[in-house]
Amino acid sequence: MRFDIISANPKILESSLNNGLISRARNKNLAEIYLHDLRDYSEGRYKQIDDEPYGGGSGMILKPEPFFKCIERLLSERQYDEILHFTPQGKEYNQKRANDFSLLKNFILICGHYRGIDERVTEKFVTQEISIGNYVLSCGDIAALVFIDSVVRLLPGTLHDAESALSDSFQVETGFDYPQYTRPETISGMKVPDILLSGDHKKIGEWRKQKALEKYKRIKDN
Amino acid sequence: MRFDIISANPKILESSLNNGLISRARNKNLAEIYLHDLRDYSEGRYKQIDDEPYGGGSGMILKPEPFFKCIERLLSERQYDEILHFTPQGKEYNQKRANDFSLLKNFILICGHYRGIDERVTEKFVTQEISIGNYVLSCGDIAALVFIDSVVRLLPGTLHDAESALSDSFQVETGFDYPQYTRPETISGMKVPDILLSGDHKKIGEWRKQKALEKYKRIKDN
Repeated sequence: MRFDIISANPKILESSLNNGLISRARNKNLAEIYLHDLRDYSEGRYKQIDDEPYGGGSGMILKPEPFFKCIERLLSERQYDEILHFTPQGKEYNQKRANDFSLLKNFILICGHYRGIDERVTEKFVTQEISIGNYVLSCGDIAALVFIDSVVRLLPGTLHDAESALSDSFQVETGFDYPQYTRPETISGMKVPDILLSGDHKKIGEWRKQKALEKYKRIKDN
Repeated sequence: MRFDIISANPKILESSLNNGLISRARNKNLAEIYLHDLRDYSEGRYKQIDDEPYGGGSGMILKPEPFFKCIERLLSERQYDEILHFTPQGKEYNQKRANDFSLLKNFILICGHYRGIDERVTEKFVTQEISIGNYVLSCGDIAALVFIDSVVRLLPGTLHDAESALSDSFQVETGFDYPQYTRPETISGMKVPDILLSGDHKKIGEWRKQKALEKYKRIKDN
């Protein structure tokens, strides 16, 4: 799987892409990730990448030419399955979509700055606009990070333990997430529930299911 | 505003907290952010921070003691408005909640690894469990980043331009996001819509509203 991220500030993602699970997937050659700096595709002495909006209004808009140049270069080199742009008004991202994306191969991820990008970039190239949630971020880079992490962890071989990836898509669909405990048995007067020490796996399974449901209801009613 | 992030792998967020809008807010002394490494609060030669789950099951669970130590130290130093834990089963995060959080002062952000943290940490300390979306991430650190970015950009003085922050919460509530254009007037045969060059601000406003609605409907019907 390959991700080409086009960013106005590629430093933002550097350490996130070089540590944790994403870096593990890269080291195992399961994912290739390339950060492209818009400035490298801009012209003129000042390497300007944004400009004022036509028609007035506050804020600066990312100029179309650097995107066109970068995307056209990438498209001349290989085929891409999706060219995604992250915006709060896009389609709602969820685990089902993450699962579907995890079966594809090549992505271009377009990261806008807050006030947005020239609409012609979207018209010309973007296959889907994606929203990771109903809130505004300062830049699409952070949404791209959420996207990459959620997809890469589904690739066979990224997680140490196959069961982990299987059980959690179930959790997301149902809201199930049972409480987990590890050593010590007692901390600050709080003891691990006896049932988990019983060795009765049938009963433990039932207890976990019930607790997950209780927790789910408590949170959703709040 | 102050954020204390408790993480099993603090390197993941380093560059995101030191670049872009978050770093601007820090440099203007609008936000203080501290990354706490769980390992600094663990004991023994091996600085173990995770262990097997009681009752069986795959994956490793983050141990309670390092969280207890770190959180108790922080609580002895100052008051916190919220101690948040990020999990897909938490309350849905949205712009309304971001606005509310932006009025508070001190946060502890607990970042779990994938298989989760010992439930007693949540029971003892956590004021709210928050979900940034219906998908699974490899770690809570990425959710914490989304949270911090979305809150910090609302602090007066973080954005250069006050209008920016005002207009976008409106966008999120209504789905409005009109197409933006900047120079050049024509690229790859695609011209900026004439109306934006007309100077008629009333008509431009109407056109933008209509286009935003069209786009919203197109995306939501897809």
